[in-house]
Amino acid sequence: MNAKFITLDGIDGAGKTTQLKVIRDWFARQGLPVRFTREPGGTPVGEALRQLLLSPDTRIGLRAETLLMFAARAQHLEDVILPALHDGISVVSDRFTDATFAYQGAGRGLPADDVAALENWVQGSLRPDLTFLLDVPLAVSMQRIEENREKDRFEQEQAAFFTRVREGYLKRAAAAPERYAVIDSNRDKAAVRSEIEAVLQRLFA
Amino acid sequence: MNAKFITLDGIDGAGKTTQLKVIRDWFARQGLPVRFTREPGGTPVGEALRQLLLSPDTRIGLRAETLLMFAARAQHLEDVILPALHDGISVVSDRFTDATFAYQGAGRGLPADDVAALENWVQGSLRPDLTFLLDVPLAVSMQRIEENREKDRFEQEQAAFFTRVREGYLKRAAAAPERYAVIDSNRDKAAVRSEIEAVLQRLFA
Repeated sequence: MNAKFITLDGIDGAGKTTQLKVIRDWFARQGLPVRFTREPGGTPVGEALRQLLLSPDTRIGLRAETLLMFAARAQHLEDVILPALHDGISVVSDRFTDATFAYQGAGRGLPADDVAALENWVQGSLRPDLTFLLDVPLAVSMQRIEENREKDRFEQEQAAFFTRVREGYLKRAAAAPERYAVIDSNRDKAAVRSEIEAVLQRLFA
Repeated sequence: MNAKFITLDGIDGAGKTTQLKVIRDWFARQGLPVRFTREPGGTPVGEALRQLLLSPDTRIGLRAETLLMFAARAQHLEDVILPALHDGISVVSDRFTDATFAYQGAGRGLPADDVAALENWVQGSLRPDLTFLLDVPLAVSMQRIEENREKDRFEQEQAAFFTRVREGYLKRAAAAPERYAVIDSNRDKAAVRSEIEAVLQRLFA
């Protein structure tokens, strides 16, 4: 059994959807068992919370928002992530706890220690084996968000917010380089693809 | 300014609705400013979470359930409880954190230290000035619940669960008697009323 817990993170508009397909194709070609999932969400109650969290109509404060993210995560771990890993199936999650450190922490100003306290409360010692951090200049991500017709509650934030979020991600990756693969996704698709594939090859070698 | 934060707690069927009316009447007669509220709920997002938490259709684990309770509570504190107290208005909440210690802690088995960690994360040092703990024998509360046509997700639990919840409440009250007024609400209404009124008189003396 060589199941790995892989997460994919980055600011809105960093290209997660495109690179998830790259990862999906790689697993298919290798014939490795894998489950794709996402946060917030991944379970019925998690998807209900996702709706609440992303709806532009929801009025919610920073601490409540952070607790909801971790509530969805706790259920996601219990029902999806841990059972898959236990059965030898790798898990690829579109966003995970790094997003909480970046968005609620760096972006909105919740102290990192407060995020870390909930991380430990919910996850114990579980951390991803590998996190792809997709990074693009802010102008690129903002341009991509603008092309969406309907923006969710987070996408409605301004450039200064996303600047802090991006810096939050990069800071976390720099502090634990063995866990993160920071991918400059503002390049031609073939170059990004082969870098992601090389990282996956090394992880499963 | 003499605003107090008062909570009312106890197992389902302990008579909270009746005694809330007693408290409401007392504040009205005294002419003291007061805001009545409830948990989980008290805010739009909190009421959405209440629906999710109480619905018999919701499948949710213990950690996620506890995080949702505290998410609703964080918003309730920010939007309702703290602003009222700041303005010199007393707050009476139908359930508060004691319920989490009793239901998720004693009832479902989450370690009390884990509940306490979230209590501190959400509330800092804020605790109620006074908690009325309504206590009745289990047979009485179960009888009252049975008379309800539709039971919520918690009310569907069995006697052994409510026995643990009740013991959890009584243990907490015994550990901090200066904050709790344990009220035997299985007596004639006049006796319960005068005991509650006497406790309120002392609190505001």
